[in-house]
Amino acid sequence: MVKVDLNCDLGESFGNYKIGNDANILPVITSANVACGFHAGDENVMHQTVKLAKENSISIGAHPGLPDLQGFGRRNMDINPDEIYNLVVYQVGALKAFCDIYGVPLNHVKPHGALYNMGARDSEIATAIAKAIYDIDPNLILVGLSNSKLIDAAKEVGLNAASEVFADRRYEEDGQLVSRKKSNAVIENTEDAINQVVKMVTEGKVTSVSGKEIDIDADTICVHGDGAHAFEFVSQIRTKLKEANVEVIRLGG
Amino acid sequence: MVKVDLNCDLGESFGNYKIGNDANILPVITSANVACGFHAGDENVMHQTVKLAKENSISIGAHPGLPDLQGFGRRNMDINPDEIYNLVVYQVGALKAFCDIYGVPLNHVKPHGALYNMGARDSEIATAIAKAIYDIDPNLILVGLSNSKLIDAAKEVGLNAASEVFADRRYEEDGQLVSRKKSNAVIENTEDAINQVVKMVTEGKVTSVSGKEIDIDADTICVHGDGAHAFEFVSQIRTKLKEANVEVIRLGG
Amino acid sequence: MVKVDLNCDLGESFGNYKIGNDANILPVITSANVACGFHAGDENVMHQTVKLAKENSISIGAHPGLPDLQGFGRRNMDINPDEIYNLVVYQVGALKAFCDIYGVPLNHVKPHGALYNMGARDSEIATAIAKAIYDIDPNLILVGLSNSKLIDAAKEVGLNAASEVFADRRYEEDGQLVSRKKSNAVIENTEDAINQVVKMVTEGKVTSVSGKEIDIDADTICVHGDGAHAFEFVSQIRTKLKEANVEVIRLGG
Amino acid sequence: MVKVDLNCDLGESFGNYKIGNDANILPVITSANVACGFHAGDENVMHQTVKLAKENSISIGAHPGLPDLQGFGRRNMDINPDEIYNLVVYQVGALKAFCDIYGVPLNHVKPHGALYNMGARDSEIATAIAKAIYDIDPNLILVGLSNSKLIDAAKEVGLNAASEVFADRRYEEDGQLVSRKKSNAVIENTEDAINQVVKMVTEGKVTSVSGKEIDIDADTICVHGDGAHAFEFVSQIRTKLKEANVEVIRLGG
Repeated sequence: MVKVDLNCDLGESFGNYKIGNDANILPVITSANVACGFHAGDENVMHQTVKLAKENSISIGAHPGLPDLQGFGRRNMDINPDEIYNLVVYQVGALKAFCDIYGVPLNHVKPHGALYNMGARDSEIATAIAKAIYDIDPNLILVGLSNSKLIDAAKEVGLNAASEVFADRRYEEDGQLVSRKKSNAVIENTEDAINQVVKMVTEGKVTSVSGKEIDIDADTICVHGDGAHAFEFVSQIRTKLKEANVEVIRLGG
Repeated sequence: MVKVDLNCDLGESFGNYKIGNDANILPVITSANVACGFHAGDENVMHQTVKLAKENSISIGAHPGLPDLQGFGRRNMDINPDEIYNLVVYQVGALKAFCDIYGVPLNHVKPHGALYNMGARDSEIATAIAKAIYDIDPNLILVGLSNSKLIDAAKEVGLNAASEVFADRRYEEDGQLVSRKKSNAVIENTEDAINQVVKMVTEGKVTSVSGKEIDIDADTICVHGDGAHAFEFVSQIRTKLKEANVEVIRLGG
Repeated sequence: MVKVDLNCDLGESFGNYKIGNDANILPVITSANVACGFHAGDENVMHQTVKLAKENSISIGAHPGLPDLQGFGRRNMDINPDEIYNLVVYQVGALKAFCDIYGVPLNHVKPHGALYNMGARDSEIATAIAKAIYDIDPNLILVGLSNSKLIDAAKEVGLNAASEVFADRRYEEDGQLVSRKKSNAVIENTEDAINQVVKMVTEGKVTSVSGKEIDIDADTICVHGDGAHAFEFVSQIRTKLKEANVEVIRLGG
Repeated sequence: MVKVDLNCDLGESFGNYKIGNDANILPVITSANVACGFHAGDENVMHQTVKLAKENSISIGAHPGLPDLQGFGRRNMDINPDEIYNLVVYQVGALKAFCDIYGVPLNHVKPHGALYNMGARDSEIATAIAKAIYDIDPNLILVGLSNSKLIDAAKEVGLNAASEVFADRRYEEDGQLVSRKKSNAVIENTEDAINQVVKMVTEGKVTSVSGKEIDIDADTICVHGDGAHAFEFVSQIRTKLKEANVEVIRLGG
């Protein structure tokens, strides 16, 4: 039976500032990527998010980002691989401590925003990220963009990799996401998005914007927790996956 | 044989900013308290400091502080115990990850600056600190001011406590340090300072500013790594302790 | 004819984080206190807020706070008067530059949160705040809690002061606000709140929680821009003030 | 008579962290670029630096940088022109307020580090910087790399520009600085450096690394305040300039 994970970025609030509706989305996802304080989140939010994830039996992953709270970790920065190694170690370690106090395992690491994109394209950065994770705990899973340098780097250093796909994003012919700067980056139609997901998971294929069908691994699907229809959208994905005989199961089993 | 540890705050540099002369003091101390990025230090400095401590076979401890880089963690903040619990977990976890990548144990936790002083006087804050440490790992040692609430709290939650004394600071009759706002807070004369240390360690006594001799536990002595004569001063302490038949040995060691 | 100003804290968003509904409340207030980047707000938000205030012909004031984004400037910090002087100069100067690029005057300064409360009670801090404002521009108006040290300090240094009252807060017999830690701090009933406002403005009196009627100056009323009923509540205040023959007019005329 | 300014970056300390030896270099320079709190400096340091500059009758300029204290503003960030406009307005405004309280004019603005380099090469960024400065005060002088987009942008928006040259850096044939990533970026020999400066100032020429002589404007020379020989080096430059009949005079006159 085909299996897939549904992951969502959680714990992105900071101090008095709230983002997302974490409690709402938790019942329909299987993995949480928890912000670690550099691009979003803080130690109080991390505590609550780990607690909430545990109560919902969701797998917990770290979601380290660039040191840019104002830019929400979405602005590329010219940070060298040694610095990237260290900021991953720091953030993953901080989150792991909250897992420790609740006696739950840290399951995976998914880089956030600009760090994710930089790692997807640059093998030096990808390797720095993968090595940091491996050095902390070789049993952690690295979640990265399907077909990207992050997946290659994970395999090279000996980590388990989980290839991530996006329900609502379009793909280039080379397997990369269409840039958000282009008008056709996002699939607006819900049905189209769901059909793309099911096809990626069941057939390992996606139709690129050029019309060519390309190969894609789909171990985990990225969904969003905010937005008015987040819960409903993810519920529909689950229904369709069930109809297609796909088991939704958390990363790492 | 009487034993005592010599601890020093290290890794207080930040980015382009340098504080201290860590490499210089390492050969004569037995424990390092490593700043964790809130009041001083950053992930790159933490990496280097853990590496350096390992190379010198020094015990490594976390030195968590208040979120106040500008004030170097020395300005009291009205932070509640839950927030304090979380900021200790976060910072200790971050440092522990650097210990993990080098395969060295995290040995102790010593709160920094205002957090240390707030914990020394306020039992609610002391308990929050002690519980955070215990919940991460019950084998960690909490280093706190001798005769303070931090020591009481450690014992209450089931942690090993190490009572800290200061070579160059004077004591009130109740066992607290004379405030730095008073002119006689610091012992300027080197010989007096060394004599006070030896007496605290060998007799468990110190003469307070009022002239009364009081009881004091001395498991570890706080020394400073910066200043022109730091190395020489600590070397002299070691010589005198040796003459007094005291073994200098790392905490928990 | 009696006159009063209606002020509201605006521009409290930060990066990707949104707080408040500034555009909604602007039509019914006369003065905006704009966050300056230490406790809330950032340079992009400040730009937009000054632009919006100008378009609505609202008086613009600076709303400097403590350097504590995580705590939203609400946690007291042990900052000395020289540091407070400097952080007021810095933040007011930063906002003034945005006023300059739009050719609108900076009209007033209202300290935020813990800085406001510390200044209300401590005359040294109040004086540091008042001097900073005076030294930047002696024509600026200092907005402070009615009957507080901030008002005294403004007068002493030669600044115009505006005494602020709160529609929905109860008062102690000595003129201070009932602490938010007490259950009766806030007036929940809308009609009671509005009646209190009208009485403060028209009679210069307020009934304290002890039942005693005390004197209070009311140059400006603090209202809130977030919350579902903010616009409606402020509109009702305006209606009642009009019925009581009070002119709502922006600070400084 | 040929005239030139000698400028130096000052006020780069932060909180407990010290960088540079500002008091030492002040007697031999004519303009100070004062850090504004984003990449270095804080409000307390800014206050002291403006005071010190005034006491030494040095021209004061703002030295705004990217929001990256850890990276000292030297790491390129993918920040859009609107954000750059705003961060320049904010920082220049903050420094201007400290000039206001001392009754000294703000004279110039020189972008720092990565912001300087990004502006030198990218005309959109250069224009954002120039417009921000112009909108605050059209009489401010923009200091930028000689032959760069910053100088072009200043002229376009109507600002006075000052072309900056470096005593100890080598130049490419197109007038840009040799990248610090190349081994020959810096002139190590003091005499060579001084000869290059004198030639740039008196002849408007510099010999590039390719051996070709190129045109260069030299309104102001960048010198460094830290390093053991900073004072001596700048003193020697002054002596040689005097011998070459060049008047050292502060920017703007």
